[in-house]
Amino acid sequence: MNTLYLKEMESWYKNQLLTNTLPFWFPRSVDMDFGGYLLMRDADGSLIDDDKAVWIQGRAAWLLSTLYNTVEKREEWLQGAKAGIDFLLNHCFDTDGRMFFHVTREGRPLRKRRYFFSETFAVIAFAAYAAASGDETIAAKARELFGTCMQYASGEKQLPSKFTATRPSKGIGVPMILMNTAQQLREIIGDERCDTYIDQCIKEIEACFVKDGIRCVMEQVAPDGSIIDHIDGRTLNPGHAIEGAWFILHEAVYRNNDPQLIQLGCRMLDYMWERGWDKEYGGIFYFRDVYDKPVQEYWQDMKFWWPHNEAIIATLLAYIITGNEKYRQWHELVHRYAYDHFSDKEHGEWFGYLHRDGSIAQTAKGNLFKGPFHLPRQEWYCYRLLHNYLKK
Amino acid sequence: MNTLYLKEMESWYKNQLLTNTLPFWFPRSVDMDFGGYLLMRDADGSLIDDDKAVWIQGRAAWLLSTLYNTVEKREEWLQGAKAGIDFLLNHCFDTDGRMFFHVTREGRPLRKRRYFFSETFAVIAFAAYAAASGDETIAAKARELFGTCMQYASGEKQLPSKFTATRPSKGIGVPMILMNTAQQLREIIGDERCDTYIDQCIKEIEACFVKDGIRCVMEQVAPDGSIIDHIDGRTLNPGHAIEGAWFILHEAVYRNNDPQLIQLGCRMLDYMWERGWDKEYGGIFYFRDVYDKPVQEYWQDMKFWWPHNEAIIATLLAYIITGNEKYRQWHELVHRYAYDHFSDKEHGEWFGYLHRDGSIAQTAKGNLFKGPFHLPRQEWYCYRLLHNYLKK
Repeated sequence: MNTLYLKEMESWYKNQLLTNTLPFWFPRSVDMDFGGYLLMRDADGSLIDDDKAVWIQGRAAWLLSTLYNTVEKREEWLQGAKAGIDFLLNHCFDTDGRMFFHVTREGRPLRKRRYFFSETFAVIAFAAYAAASGDETIAAKARELFGTCMQYASGEKQLPSKFTATRPSKGIGVPMILMNTAQQLREIIGDERCDTYIDQCIKEIEACFVKDGIRCVMEQVAPDGSIIDHIDGRTLNPGHAIEGAWFILHEAVYRNNDPQLIQLGCRMLDYMWERGWDKEYGGIFYFRDVYDKPVQEYWQDMKFWWPHNEAIIATLLAYIITGNEKYRQWHELVHRYAYDHFSDKEHGEWFGYLHRDGSIAQTAKGNLFKGPFHLPRQEWYCYRLLHNYLKK
Repeated sequence: MNTLYLKEMESWYKNQLLTNTLPFWFPRSVDMDFGGYLLMRDADGSLIDDDKAVWIQGRAAWLLSTLYNTVEKREEWLQGAKAGIDFLLNHCFDTDGRMFFHVTREGRPLRKRRYFFSETFAVIAFAAYAAASGDETIAAKARELFGTCMQYASGEKQLPSKFTATRPSKGIGVPMILMNTAQQLREIIGDERCDTYIDQCIKEIEACFVKDGIRCVMEQVAPDGSIIDHIDGRTLNPGHAIEGAWFILHEAVYRNNDPQLIQLGCRMLDYMWERGWDKEYGGIFYFRDVYDKPVQEYWQDMKFWWPHNEAIIATLLAYIITGNEKYRQWHELVHRYAYDHFSDKEHGEWFGYLHRDGSIAQTAKGNLFKGPFHLPRQEWYCYRLLHNYLKK
């Protein structure tokens, strides 16, 4: 193991998180008038929209609670987290129990989508805040909402569908997000359902989405796991699959370095690094086609911030678990690419969207889909991982 | 007027249409087994998906019928058109009368969307085919379906909504597409409702979407025409507004060069050329923000094929109507940019998607959104426009 490298990275991530990333967002983003957070900001931090994206409200509350729980007991983080939790509870649930996707600054609903990701991010926010505040009613709320998510996933509770029943399919996103939500619930406040449920998610991912014969992790498959040979069915999301890989490697560590899970996580990472890394310009492509046909989504060869956050975590975790120098080299490659290209040296935080060649496509730091989550989570996760590893 | 330029362009468009664009699609795309068209094709024409996009099925049937009506009475065009019309009638309507958006090769439904654009393209296909075939029941069907479209637009028939009622908005797309549908219905098979309805569409566009004070055509506004100062409300689509400009210039010509309509169409073109033309790399940006803030849609600075088709028509029409040399220069600029960058010298037709710098982002000639429409319509419209003008 290259301990010098790991030490250097430990202090890099801690320093970036606390002196660069976090100060871009807080304290200014806590909405003192209406609760929640004002997160849609341009490069220099100026507000471009005062609407609130429910996913990101939950993620920001999770972040502040998590920092309070694991880094330092700063009162401003706890108070900041409370602003988000209260906003979620008071304004982000519809009368049918489902959560909205997009609300106004005051919390009036603009849009509800046909997915339950607002809910999964609220679960981790509630769990982390419950641990920070000691509030047992919020812990109960987290567990209850996780139960609802499991019902959406199993189909016991039905969500409106975008497609007819003609060509049924399922996405890797559901078992992935549920696995990660269960991991956090278990590790933050404890929940007896989680071990079995995580097992089930991993089994589904391995059985249906991981294709060893073609060295690939599918994003979408038929219910029996077969490849749907149409444009959508062939579309791969390498950054997403690499995120799935580190969720599984995280589980491997939790289970005392379970060798089968290590092997599965590393296979997923290997396959999607090969398919996702742009050998010409560097960085990770957004979408690829499993058979290298044209991808329909227009931004398919752009470089987005979050796949790089996921790949930084996955390669570091793989290196620490296996000691395989290949993963250290990949980590160094993606880390350097990302901090060279996405990082805003003037105002802090990262730009979100680069063209394929690495030039900046637009300057927003926050919008309906980007906020204080993937980057600070990566810096926090890597810092803690390295800190704990180097202590031993 | 630069008659030499116009003569050169006349033969260019006719030649491109008949020897480059059309042969890419036909006859091979007519599905002899299931009817309709197989249009999702890679650069070399190989099929990447056998699904059928209902918008494009209608547009292709319109194209073949229109060529039969206006260019030459080729039996293969009439037969080809019939394959699309039958497929639309037999497979693309749901039991509630609404049309699907995406069906399988056999015509089984995959997706129905919350818009009525499948319907508007079916109206023009039915009208053009009715004229070609002399089939009065299809003409009646076109008129009936146009009536349904007007009911969707007025709200008399309700469509499911993507957004809550919190922040009502309306898009320029609805009056634009209805105006153009009415223009074609009127000019192909005649319909008494159309003149008044077109008037109403133009009045709405001028009153609510055209902002002279800031030299802009909005894509979306509040019901009273005010600008919604949020990310979505600020997002402009220059190519779309330029398409609206030529629909209005077309109406001006139809009404014996109505000076007010000429002035309105030219203003819209001027405003959105200023905002949409990329002075650094050439070509028309996909989206812009009215106040130059970051645009959320990821592909905002890419160059898509269709805005260039619309701009080629709009600038040529503006030049022929006004004789203003500025429009000839703009026409030459966008024509040259487009045929230099989009046109596939090897296999014919155009690529659909360029990066901002003009390099090709992906190679598909046809998918769920691209097919034999914008390019052949532009070549057909410009050829006919020039042919009729030069005859005089």
